[in-house]
Amino acid sequence: MQETNDLNAPEKFPLFDLSAWSARQLAAIEQALSGWVASPADTPALAGLGDAMRYAVLDGGKRLRPLLVMAACEAVGGNQQAALRAACAVELIHAYSLVHDDMPCMDNDVLRRGKPTVHVRFGEAQALLAGDALQALAFELLTPDDESVTPLIQAQLCRLLAQAAGFQGMAGGQAIDLASVGLPLTSTQLHEMHRLKTGTLLQASVMMGAACGSASCDALKALHDYGAAIGLAFQVVDDILDVTADAATLGKTAGKDAAQDKPTFVSLMGLQPSMAYAQQLLAQALSSLEASRLDNTLALRALADMLVNRQY
Amino acid sequence: MQETNDLNAPEKFPLFDLSAWSARQLAAIEQALSGWVASPADTPALAGLGDAMRYAVLDGGKRLRPLLVMAACEAVGGNQQAALRAACAVELIHAYSLVHDDMPCMDNDVLRRGKPTVHVRFGEAQALLAGDALQALAFELLTPDDESVTPLIQAQLCRLLAQAAGFQGMAGGQAIDLASVGLPLTSTQLHEMHRLKTGTLLQASVMMGAACGSASCDALKALHDYGAAIGLAFQVVDDILDVTADAATLGKTAGKDAAQDKPTFVSLMGLQPSMAYAQQLLAQALSSLEASRLDNTLALRALADMLVNRQY
Repeated sequence: MQETNDLNAPEKFPLFDLSAWSARQLAAIEQALSGWVASPADTPALAGLGDAMRYAVLDGGKRLRPLLVMAACEAVGGNQQAALRAACAVELIHAYSLVHDDMPCMDNDVLRRGKPTVHVRFGEAQALLAGDALQALAFELLTPDDESVTPLIQAQLCRLLAQAAGFQGMAGGQAIDLASVGLPLTSTQLHEMHRLKTGTLLQASVMMGAACGSASCDALKALHDYGAAIGLAFQVVDDILDVTADAATLGKTAGKDAAQDKPTFVSLMGLQPSMAYAQQLLAQALSSLEASRLDNTLALRALADMLVNRQY
Repeated sequence: MQETNDLNAPEKFPLFDLSAWSARQLAAIEQALSGWVASPADTPALAGLGDAMRYAVLDGGKRLRPLLVMAACEAVGGNQQAALRAACAVELIHAYSLVHDDMPCMDNDVLRRGKPTVHVRFGEAQALLAGDALQALAFELLTPDDESVTPLIQAQLCRLLAQAAGFQGMAGGQAIDLASVGLPLTSTQLHEMHRLKTGTLLQASVMMGAACGSASCDALKALHDYGAAIGLAFQVVDDILDVTADAATLGKTAGKDAAQDKPTFVSLMGLQPSMAYAQQLLAQALSSLEASRLDNTLALRALADMLVNRQY
């Protein structure tokens, strides 16, 4: 039932054009990011740090997390200005994690999105500081000192993002990843590592979009389940692509997990079962959307399909 | 008029015992930090990261920033539960900055508060992640999902902390510091570097304490000025102590700024003028407190005096 990768195939999403929708959202997201991750002209001494931050964030990446925020906001009919801030904030957290993850003391990667990594281009110290400053900027974006976003939404967005980024989220997942190189992980341990490392931030993207509006507890619970399913599916597909795609397509070093002897879903389950598992998670995600009873989940549906059936 | 360092000299603060006040505050702060920077028993794989985070935060440091938060909250009669969260959050930001600042790609320091630095004890990757997770945890502490702190205060605290920690605050100051080693800085440039690197977070500590209550615009402006004066004074005194104190007293490597050819207030102004400047800034801070017309500024007064006249 999910054999095709053509998102615009009329039989799948008769009323929804994901490409056009994404293009509209991305135009707003890129413009906002470019404005918010700026080098202040009045402090020339900060130009170097600003350049590193902009390099890490702009002109790269699929912006999957921001698109999930915008789609979830649309599903609940939320405040779009709040969602745009949330979308950019979650992307800044993602971008900072890549900068730090690529550093020599971590994965020591030199290629990212087809470009030299930040520490290769700007030096390690600047990469460390750029990552730190991007994390702080994420919370700054969420707390504008004006009337555009209510204090309640600001506080909820900060809470969701902080929980997803920290010890019991992304940073914790990185630490488990680091500690597990070369170790045989059980399926439970592998799931837990990826839930923390990538799942929580993807799920938080959905919940942050939902926090920009008002939804019933049942709808929030369903979106939470949707987020969990796509968060996990994303990593399963990442592991699949790490063995099936080449570096030119991925824009990063392919096969590096296997080379570093890192446990993956493919190494644990095998390739075909991993692909079946990804489709099963997609079905779970779509069924959660049904259960949400929200009116406008077409973008969330299409994003889940794209995420699982992507080629890079 | 500020010749003595004895804070409890009756002629200076007849109605206030800073030692007793600090001891009370610190008991609450240490207990709260110890509870909030915890290793979750249900995720053994996170024990290593949790240990590094606790090592970086607990059992060390003067807790100057948390004390400023509590003192400012007291001055405005604010919500003490909110202030305790803000106090711990600002200390987490301070602690994470030290962890990252000590790393080999930055200052490459091996001794901090008389103990091996985090990367020496836990490795560079764990130090990087511990710092990242501490920053996220700071914002998590500020956004409890209960009724103890209003959404408005939560949002204000996040805004103040994010601005002070980031690009146009602490991280930006670190970047300027990094870029200025061996360079002749003007007095203006040196002031700007320190305002960002240490001043903004100290000032934010004061403003976060004030945000836990309600104060007039005039009072907030006066507290802002107080924060700016003590923020700058703190760094001037740090530079003085770097040449006048020894490592055993400081608990860190003494004379390292001079050894690294870093510009300091002492290298720019000379030792005696720096000491006079620190006293002048203290007088400015105390005069701002007068101007605030707040009732209960005794703790803020005493902290400013202690900060300028400290021996380590």
